[in-house]
Amino acid sequence: MGHSLELTDFLKILVVILGTAKLFGLLAQRIGQPAILGELVGGALLGKSALGLVDPSIEVLHLLSELGIIILLFSIGLETNLASLLKVGRASLAVATVGVVLPFLLGVGVCWILGQDRLVSIVCGAALTATSVGITVRVLSELGHLNDPESQIVLGAAIIDDIVGLVILSVVATLATGGSVTGVGIARISLLAGGFLVVTIVVGRPLLRGLFRLTRKIKPAGSTTIYALLLALGLAWLADKAGSAVIIGAFAAGVLLVDSPRHHEIELGVTRLGHFFVPLFFVCVGAAVDLSALNPLDPARRSTLVFAGLLTVAAVLGKFAAGYAPFWLKARKSLIGVAMIPRGEVGLIFAQMGRSSGVLGEDLFAALTLVVMITTFLAPILLRLIAHPTGPPDEVGIEDLVNTA
Amino acid sequence: MGHSLELTDFLKILVVILGTAKLFGLLAQRIGQPAILGELVGGALLGKSALGLVDPSIEVLHLLSELGIIILLFSIGLETNLASLLKVGRASLAVATVGVVLPFLLGVGVCWILGQDRLVSIVCGAALTATSVGITVRVLSELGHLNDPESQIVLGAAIIDDIVGLVILSVVATLATGGSVTGVGIARISLLAGGFLVVTIVVGRPLLRGLFRLTRKIKPAGSTTIYALLLALGLAWLADKAGSAVIIGAFAAGVLLVDSPRHHEIELGVTRLGHFFVPLFFVCVGAAVDLSALNPLDPARRSTLVFAGLLTVAAVLGKFAAGYAPFWLKARKSLIGVAMIPRGEVGLIFAQMGRSSGVLGEDLFAALTLVVMITTFLAPILLRLIAHPTGPPDEVGIEDLVNTA
Repeated sequence: MGHSLELTDFLKILVVILGTAKLFGLLAQRIGQPAILGELVGGALLGKSALGLVDPSIEVLHLLSELGIIILLFSIGLETNLASLLKVGRASLAVATVGVVLPFLLGVGVCWILGQDRLVSIVCGAALTATSVGITVRVLSELGHLNDPESQIVLGAAIIDDIVGLVILSVVATLATGGSVTGVGIARISLLAGGFLVVTIVVGRPLLRGLFRLTRKIKPAGSTTIYALLLALGLAWLADKAGSAVIIGAFAAGVLLVDSPRHHEIELGVTRLGHFFVPLFFVCVGAAVDLSALNPLDPARRSTLVFAGLLTVAAVLGKFAAGYAPFWLKARKSLIGVAMIPRGEVGLIFAQMGRSSGVLGEDLFAALTLVVMITTFLAPILLRLIAHPTGPPDEVGIEDLVNTA
Repeated sequence: MGHSLELTDFLKILVVILGTAKLFGLLAQRIGQPAILGELVGGALLGKSALGLVDPSIEVLHLLSELGIIILLFSIGLETNLASLLKVGRASLAVATVGVVLPFLLGVGVCWILGQDRLVSIVCGAALTATSVGITVRVLSELGHLNDPESQIVLGAAIIDDIVGLVILSVVATLATGGSVTGVGIARISLLAGGFLVVTIVVGRPLLRGLFRLTRKIKPAGSTTIYALLLALGLAWLADKAGSAVIIGAFAAGVLLVDSPRHHEIELGVTRLGHFFVPLFFVCVGAAVDLSALNPLDPARRSTLVFAGLLTVAAVLGKFAAGYAPFWLKARKSLIGVAMIPRGEVGLIFAQMGRSSGVLGEDLFAALTLVVMITTFLAPILLRLIAHPTGPPDEVGIEDLVNTA
């Protein structure tokens, strides 16, 4: 950080990053995979261990890809309707609970077997708890299954996962930057993150409702999105200041605006901004991966691949088993389990955070990114195998941030 | 430059800048002024000479506001229909020619009287040649005059001014960074800028048409804007590499896409991105103004105010006289002249460039920014005085980048 970057070089880097994101995103989609996978692979090719065109530690790239994360979490929040979540009920809750606890324990177990320390184990276990709503929704909708009861359960569970994952993430973030790894410490940070979410939503909702009523007569003129973004950036900053994580604030801002009268306009505008900022994050994560750490021909690096392999097994089994958690239900539980597998964007945020805080070395970061990529890659293939198309694709929403090129 | 900025501080600065831009933009509109004026005043309050909250020399702010300029020029290009420009004919050409030559000569004259050196005179003279299409269109449309023949002449002239202004700007940019101030040198850079525009458009148009035909079947999925932005960033980089200015490339990209089948979608998407990036530029220009340089109570600074005053007179008279250039026409020539007065965004780009290249000291930069602000402030007032509303406001396009809060 602290490099001095000329405008010409900045423009060149932006063109290279966005161009690569679009090109590899399109290629990924051609083979039936989400665009995010192409963006990661493209990023890895651009990074220092391959072409060396993009250095993700350049300050402006780092800050812009952090903005990408904030916008991504904001848009996930904008999709999180708490009221309809309460209706999904016991089945989603069961899937979510098992889908968080089991992968976490399996991940920690793998780390324990391989002799990793406590903090590394927590980061790796935590990274396995997330579920990418975006990728799952996209594949289910392509297959015409989005309105099946199984899909509704998966969606509810994935959203609960997101919220729990965010709380875990804020705990991990604090631990990684020097917080104490004690039961009391972890409880304190969890309560802080959960408390921030609850207080923001309880206090913010009536405030915003009043504000919308006051400004009803002002012509929006396209800047509603900027006001919404101001809320997201402001809450992200506040969450950070309150000792929690920026993404908690961004997510809370999204949830706050879910049932605002201008929700559709805001969602559209945020997605447009996201098309610029979010690929920067994915490409930069890819560019940070040291490909040589995954070289199977180098005997010294084989342990990294073994680690990645075992974590992948833990990741797949943990979520697949979660599909069978609502045992009382008559539903295709294998479909539920498989749909929960892709880690996607949230898993990457964990990996990136572990790396930037220094908890994960180059080897473990590369391994964790590989795990996210494999789960993301596997899910669409498995889903297509077990769920046959039943109709025309359903309409999709903001998920296309992770899915379109 | 080269500061190291933490994410928390970056978020705080973004919230402060965007919040101030919106607040002061709204206040400006309340008193019948364009939002850009409020953003400049707000920026000046945030800057080092007042509250000291925003330092525009921070690398990431500098780069993002440069992106703002590129997106602004891209959107101006997207509004520049060369075919319909050819139809506006002699009257617009006459207004544009006089409106460039006269203010330039008057500006250089003022500098000469006050004993400024040759490079400063050229920068100040050049800054007076621009016309803000955005602000003029907005006011004319508010008054319901947008479809009058006078307005059509003004629009044509303002667009020609933009193109000529861009060529002048690229000349000034090269001179300011050490090019030789000789007739041959100036001619070479002008030809380069003009040549870049012509070659890009002549070569790019059939290429793009083919590309659009090839990709007709691909679902846009909201990322058309990113492809368009890639073109703008790529051409901006290319123009810079070719020895011209980035804004020439961004403008050329806009002109190239004017009659593309996805023009409307691109315009909408670029405007949305602009709502984020463009205010960063205006606020940063405002924040760079050293208000103490304009303190009328400090005798040492009075010469700066005299300079600003004389330049303002040159700026107003030069453009007003240009309204009478098509002497053969039966039209309200005073309306044409007044509508050409506001310098707005392009004038600011000149001032900013003069400052960052070191040609203009703090005093002259503050003076030039003041001139732009006064002309921008005067035009709507004068227009309302001489042109009475005739009907309901017309629909406006992308100009709202400079006009809405």
